[in-house]
Amino acid sequence: MSDFRLATRCARLKSSAIRQILKVTAGPDIISFAGGLPAPELFPLQDIGRATEEVLREDGASAMQYGPTEGYLPLREWVCAHLSATVKLQASPDCVLITQGSQQGLDLVAKVLLDPGDRVLVETPSYVGALQAFGSYEAELVGIPSDENGMRTEELRRVLESSAPKPKFLYLIPNFHNPTGTSLSAARRTEIVDLAATHGVPLVEDDPYDQMRYSGEALPALGALPGAHDRLYLGTASKILCPGLRIAWLVSPDRALYERLVSAKQASDLHTSSFSQRLVWRYVRQPGVFGAHIERLRAAYGRRRDAMLGALERHLPDGCRWTRPDGGLFIWVEVPPRIDTLELLTAAMAQKVAFVPGEPFWVDHAPRNTLRLNFSNANEERIEEGVRRLAVAVKCGM
Amino acid sequence: MSDFRLATRCARLKSSAIRQILKVTAGPDIISFAGGLPAPELFPLQDIGRATEEVLREDGASAMQYGPTEGYLPLREWVCAHLSATVKLQASPDCVLITQGSQQGLDLVAKVLLDPGDRVLVETPSYVGALQAFGSYEAELVGIPSDENGMRTEELRRVLESSAPKPKFLYLIPNFHNPTGTSLSAARRTEIVDLAATHGVPLVEDDPYDQMRYSGEALPALGALPGAHDRLYLGTASKILCPGLRIAWLVSPDRALYERLVSAKQASDLHTSSFSQRLVWRYVRQPGVFGAHIERLRAAYGRRRDAMLGALERHLPDGCRWTRPDGGLFIWVEVPPRIDTLELLTAAMAQKVAFVPGEPFWVDHAPRNTLRLNFSNANEERIEEGVRRLAVAVKCGM
Repeated sequence: MSDFRLATRCARLKSSAIRQILKVTAGPDIISFAGGLPAPELFPLQDIGRATEEVLREDGASAMQYGPTEGYLPLREWVCAHLSATVKLQASPDCVLITQGSQQGLDLVAKVLLDPGDRVLVETPSYVGALQAFGSYEAELVGIPSDENGMRTEELRRVLESSAPKPKFLYLIPNFHNPTGTSLSAARRTEIVDLAATHGVPLVEDDPYDQMRYSGEALPALGALPGAHDRLYLGTASKILCPGLRIAWLVSPDRALYERLVSAKQASDLHTSSFSQRLVWRYVRQPGVFGAHIERLRAAYGRRRDAMLGALERHLPDGCRWTRPDGGLFIWVEVPPRIDTLELLTAAMAQKVAFVPGEPFWVDHAPRNTLRLNFSNANEERIEEGVRRLAVAVKCGM
Repeated sequence: MSDFRLATRCARLKSSAIRQILKVTAGPDIISFAGGLPAPELFPLQDIGRATEEVLREDGASAMQYGPTEGYLPLREWVCAHLSATVKLQASPDCVLITQGSQQGLDLVAKVLLDPGDRVLVETPSYVGALQAFGSYEAELVGIPSDENGMRTEELRRVLESSAPKPKFLYLIPNFHNPTGTSLSAARRTEIVDLAATHGVPLVEDDPYDQMRYSGEALPALGALPGAHDRLYLGTASKILCPGLRIAWLVSPDRALYERLVSAKQASDLHTSSFSQRLVWRYVRQPGVFGAHIERLRAAYGRRRDAMLGALERHLPDGCRWTRPDGGLFIWVEVPPRIDTLELLTAAMAQKVAFVPGEPFWVDHAPRNTLRLNFSNANEERIEEGVRRLAVAVKCGM
């Protein structure tokens, strides 16, 4: 088996572990905190329907035709306005590439930047889909530990100043991290930008959750801090509208790199759906609709987060710790070290509650006693009951 | 520059040559035979609109949610029925992977099967998007010459029996080839299947045009001939419905290979649009609608093909030759050897007519005097006038 295929298989094993869990937990009597799904009852189907009718009526033939690899220009223009208004990132449409979900953005970045054996710095734990994408190009993943303020900069400095070959890029999720839910502090954002610039390491900033904030103050993107030439930024419509349309955006201020990404995208799938791109654009330009929807999401998910934090406090036994995210979809839990969360899952399933064991999110030296809980896909009542059941399983394992 | 990036750049140069041509030829006073676009006036917008309403009304939340990497099961079931009824390919839904256009299918095949330096056999000339996809994984492309009956089997035999390393797969477009418009004869299908089996070389059969037949008899897919274990088949909704939704299918009877393709797809973009997949399924299941649409397409494109063949006969000077396709979207033209079609394009643009020079479709030893004409994207009147203008340019160059 070639290294490439070995790498692919290892990545697959990790993700397929999660896929298996998601399949088993699909039953209606199971309360699942395992997936990362938005709440389907909050999808704005009426407004999406109106946007769809408008696309077909006013621009139907173009919506069904081949389109440019870079993406639909009005949508790219909206992305620029949106990024400027939210994360203070100033980008021009000719730096914006529309991708088939952020997962494709990660794949394209890896395809263009990585040769086998290249080192990539990632937070540990980190998003399993990113680890899988980078691993499929045979990258060597180097984990930088993180805490409640995100990636630990003294560890990053140590790795960057070591004699090891220079990493090809540094990947991080600054807001409401998947899986930990934590956010990178303002001081560390500046430090990381400076360290990356000093060592000439490009930043890849994956920011799917920035609009899903329920408390605390918003911070600018790392890409919005001065000197952003070699910083890539990934955003998506998956959390702020819906994932099923597979619309996301990758911003590259470096023009030469942008052209290479477009070229890789063209070889990968020619372009993203002309229809989906126009649909998202017609949706977001309806006056007042998008803003009101974001407010509705924040209110609902904020209540669910609070319900889960309250339930964890009420039900989990001493010796458990968890993060207190200001936003996003996830809470990260540490149970006492003697509990292996892969085994805990079996006990939890017997109680009809599910979660994702933490192991696949780690690059190396995975502790056995971590797990990820999702709070966006269940209402407050089911969250309360689900955490109660989880606590029963944890107490049995202690 | 690494080999990988060099390969990417070479592939990009080829495709970007075509992209530049397509951009220049977008003016309304230019008659363009350059693209490969379906006729937008034939998109069944009303029926698509009805299918869209039905998806949103009956299955809206699932259409907006994350979905399985393999694709939407009812669509995969329809694909199996469709392939059985049309190209006689018997497949089960668990061998069908829904992809983001066939271009993604080609990319996934390359990603899973190719290591740098691996040899891939292709018809020459061949589809430039496939050459680009395989090239982006640093494959060595080996061209097998073709004639009016498709790939020349004596040349294929010679290459397979040579002492060179065994190719990783053989890629071919059996029906109404892009760019040549020719089809692989029944005798050669059997011969190629036998040769591939003897030498243990998997077949990758790219079949986007099989339903676009305007004359002659349909033949079964190569994958439908006995012993199809290691034959991959790619089909698409881009030509029979519309390309803008980016819905296609990749069939792999080999279960282990299928799992690797699913894994690669998951790392590439998680899954294809839940909405687009449901939309295509709801469209094709409307009673009588899809069949009538195919008949309408065949009639209209058949008239356009006849108009172009007639106009070529009337206007092109002696010393020109062209293919007479039974279907598809393209006619392949050879002008006298002293004419370089890259230079001819400049003269043709002065006459306000455009085409694609043949050079990017060749793997090596590209003759300078070939070009591709598309007949699906202009009506009969414009085809007549466009070919008249082309003939003026050709005569100037002689």
